[in-house]
Amino acid sequence: MDNFTFYAPTYFAFGRDTEQDTGKYVRRFGGSKVLVHFGGGSVVRSGLLDRVKKSLEGEGIAYVELGGVKPNPRSGLVYEGIELCRREGVDFVLAVGGGSTIDSAKAIAAGAVYDGDFWDYYQGKLVEHALPLGTVLTIAAAGSEGSPDSVITHENGMFKRGATGEGLRPKFTILNPALTQTLPPYQTACGVTDIMAHLYERYLTNTTDVECTDRMIEALMLTMINEAPKVMADPNDYQARANILWAGMMAHNNSCGVGRSQDWASHDIEHELSAVYDCAHGAGLAVVMPAVFTYNMQHNVMRFAQAAVRVWGCEMDFAHPERTAKAGIEALRSFLISIGMPKNFAELGAKEEDIEKMAHSACHGDARTGSIGGFVSLNQQDVENIYRLML
Amino acid sequence: MDNFTFYAPTYFAFGRDTEQDTGKYVRRFGGSKVLVHFGGGSVVRSGLLDRVKKSLEGEGIAYVELGGVKPNPRSGLVYEGIELCRREGVDFVLAVGGGSTIDSAKAIAAGAVYDGDFWDYYQGKLVEHALPLGTVLTIAAAGSEGSPDSVITHENGMFKRGATGEGLRPKFTILNPALTQTLPPYQTACGVTDIMAHLYERYLTNTTDVECTDRMIEALMLTMINEAPKVMADPNDYQARANILWAGMMAHNNSCGVGRSQDWASHDIEHELSAVYDCAHGAGLAVVMPAVFTYNMQHNVMRFAQAAVRVWGCEMDFAHPERTAKAGIEALRSFLISIGMPKNFAELGAKEEDIEKMAHSACHGDARTGSIGGFVSLNQQDVENIYRLML
Repeated sequence: MDNFTFYAPTYFAFGRDTEQDTGKYVRRFGGSKVLVHFGGGSVVRSGLLDRVKKSLEGEGIAYVELGGVKPNPRSGLVYEGIELCRREGVDFVLAVGGGSTIDSAKAIAAGAVYDGDFWDYYQGKLVEHALPLGTVLTIAAAGSEGSPDSVITHENGMFKRGATGEGLRPKFTILNPALTQTLPPYQTACGVTDIMAHLYERYLTNTTDVECTDRMIEALMLTMINEAPKVMADPNDYQARANILWAGMMAHNNSCGVGRSQDWASHDIEHELSAVYDCAHGAGLAVVMPAVFTYNMQHNVMRFAQAAVRVWGCEMDFAHPERTAKAGIEALRSFLISIGMPKNFAELGAKEEDIEKMAHSACHGDARTGSIGGFVSLNQQDVENIYRLML
Repeated sequence: MDNFTFYAPTYFAFGRDTEQDTGKYVRRFGGSKVLVHFGGGSVVRSGLLDRVKKSLEGEGIAYVELGGVKPNPRSGLVYEGIELCRREGVDFVLAVGGGSTIDSAKAIAAGAVYDGDFWDYYQGKLVEHALPLGTVLTIAAAGSEGSPDSVITHENGMFKRGATGEGLRPKFTILNPALTQTLPPYQTACGVTDIMAHLYERYLTNTTDVECTDRMIEALMLTMINEAPKVMADPNDYQARANILWAGMMAHNNSCGVGRSQDWASHDIEHELSAVYDCAHGAGLAVVMPAVFTYNMQHNVMRFAQAAVRVWGCEMDFAHPERTAKAGIEALRSFLISIGMPKNFAELGAKEEDIEKMAHSACHGDARTGSIGGFVSLNQQDVENIYRLML
């Protein structure tokens, strides 16, 4: 284990009807003039937005609204939100929705109190200060509700980049599993895939002696493998939704990722896909992960074999550990297909002729320095090879 | 899963030499006049106390000292500390030591800003306000470094009771695994046992559909089972110490215990032993746990069988699940004996003639209402029967 610091001061209210306390939590964490940020569609139709606004009104808290967040949230709305916050004297940002809405809200919260261009943060500047932020989560996926991270796509160049910093950690998060019951199966499966990816990105480490965090990651993977089929079979399974919701937060608040190097190559390679084709991040990851892991397997066969045995229930082939390692990757692929995820470029709507461009953007685009990946360092040729495994 | 709230805003600095930043963290969390609270012995001999004081001086932070905390910390020193804080205008309490020192520091921090008797908190009053508190931990065991809990023994009646409340959650905690390398094997093993107990107390639940937290608890148990033999074989194994240190914190910060009923019968039954005989809490738990679990096994055979299979590697006996359940309890007992823990009253120095008195105190003593245990409700007769299993 390496030295580390860990600080996760987000207040979680978990369970049925907890969104009715939104106003109470905004007040507790100092908000008096709120930007309510959301996407549209289901948050409005389900009445959730109205319940949240009623809760704010019940506490006498003023608010302005900004809807319209799209999946793979973009810089244009962020600039609009920053301007609105400044004009209206907003002192608290409330995200009502999924990871895209939360990430957009984080960018607005950071940009509203920053003199420069908010995009500086997405080029590597740490976010130390931002308006306080709360979230009402509607999908188990991104883990943004408990993390200090945000991912935004800049419309100038379509670069999809991440920012991080303690200023982005939500003050409170409301987790009501019932709010996730109305999700279509495809989006549910995309969320499950994203959570699995957050776990694999941490699992693929070059740090030795990480038994505790290895076991924690495996525990959360096992939770996903056991609970996901239940929600695919019955979207109204509150208890399975609840387990996935807590696992999704724990997968990304980094308590299982501390003191170890992490990978994040799959995320970087996927971000090019969702930036170019606007596909769902989870769907992209389902295609990317097996390819990346297959390409990187020889770097540490025993690590993949460990996942195969402990997580996927494969028998260890002591004479040929690489067979076990491969069986684990295939088990992941089968699992993702079984919950309805795409398995290749064609099913994702991606095109072979874009490979070179995407590989170049991943390795040499905005704020990149020639290679990606913390587990195996991948250059543009490697990334092209990996994309070709997805054809 | 049940509804819950979770809030764990402790800042952790983990790794080699991190105690040298103590002064920096005290300043960050608002301290300007500190009570440095400690036991004595190894903290002084090892030079740790001097390094911590030097770090405070380096930041220009004034302090007063109060040493003398004993294992199973007592009310007398707490009253003394409260008086000292008031007299000296202390605004921050710093615990340097193990769980006993931290628990004593928590009691002082709460009592110093409370008009009544601090013992009110140990009779059930929630601790909402206390002086801010930091810790420099020297033993992986109690989990008090990341929890909102404290246990104190009142010298008037020798009642050992717990308090809880967000006011008791440390602002920061310094975790340097190297500081735990000088611990004698017996104390190391006591710490391991305490951590296993914190996990079992949460594992033994009547709440259904708790896959995520079950898996997390199992992951932390597996960590302890794999890492503890390494530190028993080589006390200087930094990496094994590191894994145990983080597992011990995670075992008790309650991220793996949320949304589920918990037991705590083993702790309540043990507290009588350490209150009466002044034995180490972990040593008492080693004798208590197998007895409690054997007594309660029929309440939910499948829960004990699950632990046996997933944690202890037992084969499931599908025709006779109770045999598997029992094999898991025996595996726990063997593990505890293998790291040098006592197995019965005689080895603990406890006496059969005190059983009735201790069972009465556990169920009817200070602040108790006739029964204990969240998994199975145990009355005085049950507790007597359980003590007799330890003979």
